[in-house]
Amino acid sequence: MPLVTVTRRLTFNAAHRVHNPALSDEENTRLFGKCNNPNWHGHNYVLEVSLTGEPDPITGYVIDLGEVKRIVESEFVSQVDHRNLNLEVPFLQGTNPTSENIILACWRLLEPALRPGRLSRLRLWETENNYVEYDGR
Amino acid sequence: MPLVTVTRRLTFNAAHRVHNPALSDEENTRLFGKCNNPNWHGHNYVLEVSLTGEPDPITGYVIDLGEVKRIVESEFVSQVDHRNLNLEVPFLQGTNPTSENIILACWRLLEPALRPGRLSRLRLWETENNYVEYDGR
Amino acid sequence: MPLVTVTRRLTFNAAHRVHNPALSDEENTRLFGKCNNPNWHGHNYVLEVSLTGEPDPITGYVIDLGEVKRIVESEFVSQVDHRNLNLEVPFLQGTNPTSENIILACWRLLEPALRPGRLSRLRLWETENNYVEYDGR
Amino acid sequence: MPLVTVTRRLTFNAAHRVHNPALSDEENTRLFGKCNNPNWHGHNYVLEVSLTGEPDPITGYVIDLGEVKRIVESEFVSQVDHRNLNLEVPFLQGTNPTSENIILACWRLLEPALRPGRLSRLRLWETENNYVEYDGR
Amino acid sequence: MPLVTVTRRLTFNAAHRVHNPALSDEENTRLFGKCNNPNWHGHNYVLEVSLTGEPDPITGYVIDLGEVKRIVESEFVSQVDHRNLNLEVPFLQGTNPTSENIILACWRLLEPALRPGRLSRLRLWETENNYVEYDGR
Amino acid sequence: MPLVTVTRRLTFNAAHRVHNPALSDEENTRLFGKCNNPNWHGHNYVLEVSLTGEPDPITGYVIDLGEVKRIVESEFVSQVDHRNLNLEVPFLQGTNPTSENIILACWRLLEPALRPGRLSRLRLWETENNYVEYDGR
Repeated sequence: MPLVTVTRRLTFNAAHRVHNPALSDEENTRLFGKCNNPNWHGHNYVLEVSLTGEPDPITGYVIDLGEVKRIVESEFVSQVDHRNLNLEVPFLQGTNPTSENIILACWRLLEPALRPGRLSRLRLWETENNYVEYDGR
Repeated sequence: MPLVTVTRRLTFNAAHRVHNPALSDEENTRLFGKCNNPNWHGHNYVLEVSLTGEPDPITGYVIDLGEVKRIVESEFVSQVDHRNLNLEVPFLQGTNPTSENIILACWRLLEPALRPGRLSRLRLWETENNYVEYDGR
Repeated sequence: MPLVTVTRRLTFNAAHRVHNPALSDEENTRLFGKCNNPNWHGHNYVLEVSLTGEPDPITGYVIDLGEVKRIVESEFVSQVDHRNLNLEVPFLQGTNPTSENIILACWRLLEPALRPGRLSRLRLWETENNYVEYDGR
Repeated sequence: MPLVTVTRRLTFNAAHRVHNPALSDEENTRLFGKCNNPNWHGHNYVLEVSLTGEPDPITGYVIDLGEVKRIVESEFVSQVDHRNLNLEVPFLQGTNPTSENIILACWRLLEPALRPGRLSRLRLWETENNYVEYDGR
Repeated sequence: MPLVTVTRRLTFNAAHRVHNPALSDEENTRLFGKCNNPNWHGHNYVLEVSLTGEPDPITGYVIDLGEVKRIVESEFVSQVDHRNLNLEVPFLQGTNPTSENIILACWRLLEPALRPGRLSRLRLWETENNYVEYDGR
Repeated sequence: MPLVTVTRRLTFNAAHRVHNPALSDEENTRLFGKCNNPNWHGHNYVLEVSLTGEPDPITGYVIDLGEVKRIVESEFVSQVDHRNLNLEVPFLQGTNPTSENIILACWRLLEPALRPGRLSRLRLWETENNYVEYDGR
């Protein structure tokens, strides 16, 4: 049976600073430069959520992408959109909100919530020039 | 010898409805909502066709992408562009034209027609927010 | 007082055929070719709605673009999204649904509905290579 | 002599909240909703800077766009990139940083600094769905 | 009668150098830097061709955009695509091929050739960050 | 420990011709058509550089993408931007500069230079419709 991958793209806007609270301010400045600005900066993030599975013989869908949108908005986007990623997001508490750490936290939230099919890839664009990907490995 | 993947992007415009003719109208409405509209809707589809192979030592090409364009237009795009995917496309007859089913039918047409290199991935965008991928597995 | 133009982008998917019901089938075929396919084709339309006005001294907005989105969805997008533009759209009845005619009908619907500021430009993309604009003149 | 318009596109990332300090918190919440979040949110802004003039007969340029880039970065982008638009930007002090107010402040900075040609249009994208324009009137 | 503007987007790839043959090599280097490289560089140009007119009451078109494509390819694109703009293009002979000079030459070729409607705007993208516009004034 | 892939996008503009110097002019013309124009053509190339690794527990980065940008510009982009790929680029000497051959040469330069993480994928867009990928195999 063939395995097809389906992807839904979603967006959110958030403030953050790249900051490791376990380090001194001097060390944070040295490592992260302008991205460490204590007054924050922000991004229009773009998230691509991919699931892989066999198309259902009745619906022809791996999963209804409208359903993917509803689950991702409910489980993830609603917690980060128009928020401060350092201060307000429970599942990022104590985490340095780099794109790498955001995508790993996003995977942990979404992987158990998305069925049928299985979550096979997340891609997160921080700017038009930078993105990160994770496939569960 | 290194394996390079080359991709050509093509577009087509088509009408369809998401509809399983084996189900009742009520069941189709319940499953597919506005996408089941009996009067159709449509999309600007974007297809990305990828082949993988060793670059030819004479040409430096895995395959001439102009040739890929000609083959994909002749074998696939000419049958779906400005068409109704439920009514007019021989290789989709009796199929519910979800993106998943379109990409699988596209693979069956293109895989034997594209040489040298081998077809290694298809990506089909239905909207700017939704796409599907298939790699032959 | 300065005049600023604000724009909101929205999308919809629809089926249509380019067809003038006052002409014979032969004449329609001759004029419109594959765009006249009696079984329809379709597009992912992109609409950009622009209003011009003085920013309100209290809000700093010409108009809240969330409000623009709600009005355009209620007055226009809800009537065309996932619809057949020749058969199902009251304000296009008897009209050949070219992009030119769609944008003029859209203007007549939206111009009285959008306040404060005044509707100053509509842009409608039919494909990634074709768009039309109207500014009320 | 013909008048040509030349445009340079630049980007910056910033945090802000839509907030009028002359209003109560309740009024700000009512008017601006999630955009008023006291913990900020942010955007990848895209700025398009257009100048109009006669191409110089020696250079064939209205103005060297590399020079436009240098001036806009020095006069404007360096003050807003990776900054908080409510707290850190001298020319926005006391201003509600809506896109409308940002673009008017940007015009006041850039109009006297850009020569030859004259600044004829600014376009500022806040998200992929929202942008504002100003032409000096 | 309403005036609608319709636009067709086309692409071409060309080599050029920014070079004024009336100046010394030193002066060219000083003015144009790396863009003056005697061994050339090149671009994927994007051209947007806009015509304004009243939609024809029979066709609903200002002009058939397929016809615009055919005329622009025949009159302009065929002379610049995969060419060297300094060496091989008759209508640019002796001209420094800046985007400004290319767009003015393009206007002179296309303005008399495009009917019905009248050519109202050309936009030429040299890179994703730079474009020029001309409207005949 | 999870493996995340991070990507930085960069651009460069270059002239080239598709030409195998070991073949006759007639054979080159037959194989490569307009892409073999002896007067060159050119492209706005887009390069995506991906590295895979475990996010560093101190920085939260696989690698600082600003560092990736600096290395790729220093090692690769500075040698090809605004250059002629057939004439001026030491690491392409004697090579037919197809996208396949450019990406393989780029890999050989970047793979040893990019640390921490390891180079896991290059993607090179030659036009908006054509791209190639290489992952080291």
